[in-house]
Amino acid sequence: MELQEALTILDNTQKKLFAYNAASSALYLDAVTVAPRDTAEGRGMALSVLAGEQHKLLTDPALTEALGVLNEHKGELDLLHARETEELSRSVRQLTRIPAEEYMAYAQLTNEADDVWHRAKEQSDFGLFRPYLEKLVEYNRKFAGYYDPDKAPYDALLNEYERGVDTAYLDGFFAALREKLVPLIHAIGEKPQPDDSFLHRQYPVERQRKFSDYLMEVLALDRAHCGIGETEHPFTLNFTSQDVRITTHYYENDLASSMYSVIHEGGHARYELDVDPQVEYTVLAGGVSMGVHESQSRFYENIIGRSRPFIEAIFPKMQEFFPEQLSGVTAEMFWRAVNRAQPSLIRTEADELTYCLHIMVRYEIEKALIGGTMEVKDVPETWNRLYKEYLGVDVPDDKRGCLQDSHWAGGSFGYFPSYALGSAYGAQMLRNMEQDMDVWGPVGRGDLGGVTGWLAEKVHKFGGLLTPAQVVENACGTFDPMAYTDYLTKKYTELYSL
Amino acid sequence: MELQEALTILDNTQKKLFAYNAASSALYLDAVTVAPRDTAEGRGMALSVLAGEQHKLLTDPALTEALGVLNEHKGELDLLHARETEELSRSVRQLTRIPAEEYMAYAQLTNEADDVWHRAKEQSDFGLFRPYLEKLVEYNRKFAGYYDPDKAPYDALLNEYERGVDTAYLDGFFAALREKLVPLIHAIGEKPQPDDSFLHRQYPVERQRKFSDYLMEVLALDRAHCGIGETEHPFTLNFTSQDVRITTHYYENDLASSMYSVIHEGGHARYELDVDPQVEYTVLAGGVSMGVHESQSRFYENIIGRSRPFIEAIFPKMQEFFPEQLSGVTAEMFWRAVNRAQPSLIRTEADELTYCLHIMVRYEIEKALIGGTMEVKDVPETWNRLYKEYLGVDVPDDKRGCLQDSHWAGGSFGYFPSYALGSAYGAQMLRNMEQDMDVWGPVGRGDLGGVTGWLAEKVHKFGGLLTPAQVVENACGTFDPMAYTDYLTKKYTELYSL
Repeated sequence: MELQEALTILDNTQKKLFAYNAASSALYLDAVTVAPRDTAEGRGMALSVLAGEQHKLLTDPALTEALGVLNEHKGELDLLHARETEELSRSVRQLTRIPAEEYMAYAQLTNEADDVWHRAKEQSDFGLFRPYLEKLVEYNRKFAGYYDPDKAPYDALLNEYERGVDTAYLDGFFAALREKLVPLIHAIGEKPQPDDSFLHRQYPVERQRKFSDYLMEVLALDRAHCGIGETEHPFTLNFTSQDVRITTHYYENDLASSMYSVIHEGGHARYELDVDPQVEYTVLAGGVSMGVHESQSRFYENIIGRSRPFIEAIFPKMQEFFPEQLSGVTAEMFWRAVNRAQPSLIRTEADELTYCLHIMVRYEIEKALIGGTMEVKDVPETWNRLYKEYLGVDVPDDKRGCLQDSHWAGGSFGYFPSYALGSAYGAQMLRNMEQDMDVWGPVGRGDLGGVTGWLAEKVHKFGGLLTPAQVVENACGTFDPMAYTDYLTKKYTELYSL
Repeated sequence: MELQEALTILDNTQKKLFAYNAASSALYLDAVTVAPRDTAEGRGMALSVLAGEQHKLLTDPALTEALGVLNEHKGELDLLHARETEELSRSVRQLTRIPAEEYMAYAQLTNEADDVWHRAKEQSDFGLFRPYLEKLVEYNRKFAGYYDPDKAPYDALLNEYERGVDTAYLDGFFAALREKLVPLIHAIGEKPQPDDSFLHRQYPVERQRKFSDYLMEVLALDRAHCGIGETEHPFTLNFTSQDVRITTHYYENDLASSMYSVIHEGGHARYELDVDPQVEYTVLAGGVSMGVHESQSRFYENIIGRSRPFIEAIFPKMQEFFPEQLSGVTAEMFWRAVNRAQPSLIRTEADELTYCLHIMVRYEIEKALIGGTMEVKDVPETWNRLYKEYLGVDVPDDKRGCLQDSHWAGGSFGYFPSYALGSAYGAQMLRNMEQDMDVWGPVGRGDLGGVTGWLAEKVHKFGGLLTPAQVVENACGTFDPMAYTDYLTKKYTELYSL
């Protein structure tokens, strides 16, 4: 095979992968927004066939041959084609270890499991979800063996989400966090808590929708290219860098919930929209890894969105949206309320400080499930025990316990640690950003242009042109978890006058 | 190739076709409901690739061989496989005449054209849409030659929507309608019109949404399998017989518009939901033809929905939804108002009597465009002239003129006549239904069970198991347009005391 032919196969394969992904995304988006309740079967069939076609595409001998040719001529390729070859070769290697029938059955399983999980959560009925979770764990243990038989299964899965990260690394990372954060949390426990009752007044959904529009404007999310929908569990989905969707969930008596979902998902969207269009329709399109993605979402949500200058900037506008609910409230009071650090039940609504403890619970459970040292039936009990141990709270039901997150229903085991890593990356990015420019002056005037410009230049624009490790290196330098613990210590010392 | 292998190929091919259709449908549904404005490009790429894959699937030599084997063994096949073979063979024959690149480019064109049409309609700017319409006409003229080079191009396209129907047949059909209906319309023109001002009071969208829910209940549309959305132009889309979606468009000052859209699309949905599940995931799934489909939607909309007994049955409930707006209004007044026959501008809001004149305008223009006797640039002028001639109305702008319908933007030329044929089929079905059972007693109590049962048995359940002509024969007997003109004459003679 000639190089030119190999390049054509490379291009065509990526375009098809894009189309299959777009198709699956559209079916998924429909499923979680407007699809009638009892319609999972047909969608499952469609997704399963599409997964099978994708599998066939990646295991086509012509592609294998083309990748062989491209890898031989690596020195002659431009950066784009070289990285595409690298990433696609990696996907093919991973995938060809999963037999097509298993791959298709798994696609159907995750589709069904997601549907059942929604209902199980609604009814707080783990029993309903349990048989699906058992199959999901079983598949993932098997897949881990396919991915890398030399690694422990959970390490093989972790490596899928954040290359190079393993249990040993995370055990150390989490231990470091625990060492610094637990005393901080204890110290705060002895201080009086700020009043946050005004966050739980009546906030009509229709007003909150308009407020979301405003927040998206502050994040400069172009509505001609970025939509917002409503789902049980907020998420971001990108078709292309020109077509990104975020979702949120409104609670009438909780202003901060949707507000920070919008800013969090808005951070994901900001990343996707800023990726260089030259990687469109290739495997390099979109954010480079889960960890880097979460670094961006949590950067906007916490480092910016929960900062004093940002809140001071947008608070007058907030009072226009909610004049009665926020009457008598100051920006200072609001800032303190949304940074109230207090162990709680729900990860997505946890404060910035205790958040990592929520991740640690999930990490311990995943590690044990995939490691084969724990059975699915014991998940609720273990979950509740660890929440008591780490966070000191009693879990009243599985809806607010082990059924709260969609990740496992979607087949994601090994994803959760990325949230903690992402938070740590973000803190280190802030440190570097502050050395390069005045961060807080403009943010205090509601202008995020400088922040977004810095992140676009250091992180977003590359998409998958650099590896995850290169992007982290580019924006953070050598990774140092202490940037994160320093950031939290400084912030919470000021908040609670420690 | 053995018969068994051929059957396996038949099954697998149909499952893949189902998946590609479901994927395209999900992308389309997203596009017309929630997708941000400037996102057509990526979706166009995805749809174009999917169309290419579908084309490849249908032109696969293995499929051709399998269909050959199946056709040879036709006598040994059960009805299901025999009909699948027949329909799939037909699709392959049609499709293999279109080169793959043209097919893909066309898929991308219709996606873009739909997007541009939405904007052109909004801005009432035919110039914006014109270059797309020119390309669409050009492609369809070419495709017509591929479909059947022996037929005139428009006849070849007509045959795609309603097999056996051609220009000669339609010229006769429309002439017969014109002969009976034009004098009727003239006679009505000399009578006083009923008051319908109360239909144009302020009907808040939120209440109308709830009223739609009620109407869907009356039509016994199971909401676990049938959703409702909002789009510029109402339509029905089916993923499977277990997953059907309808859409409507609400106008604050027009109750009848969405009300009859919901009943019309509800009729389409009723058909889809009633198809025998044994044809799921095959080319026989779904309604059998456009004409038969429109016969059902228009049956529910006009023959039932605008009948005196139906309105008498639901009117008390309507007054609960809209107590102020309908105060002082009686069921009798409402019945007269929604049957007001008066030449107008908008097809989808036309009354039952003048509706066919709207179709005739489109028929004449399509015939001339595809026949090559008229240029696209002349569409607005011709449209306006024919509306004056047939309906006696002046078209004030293209938004309410030649840009009002989505069909041409979607590449459908030859579809419009199906609406008129469908109406005529429906009237003949009513004649037969009335011979079989008491139609109006139960309808007058709001019970559509008998009507739906009859239609399900005579039309719906077959899906594509019978040919369109067989279904019409089964429900109507020998097609007789006079059933339609008789029905209209009787109805409007009573309404206007002619």
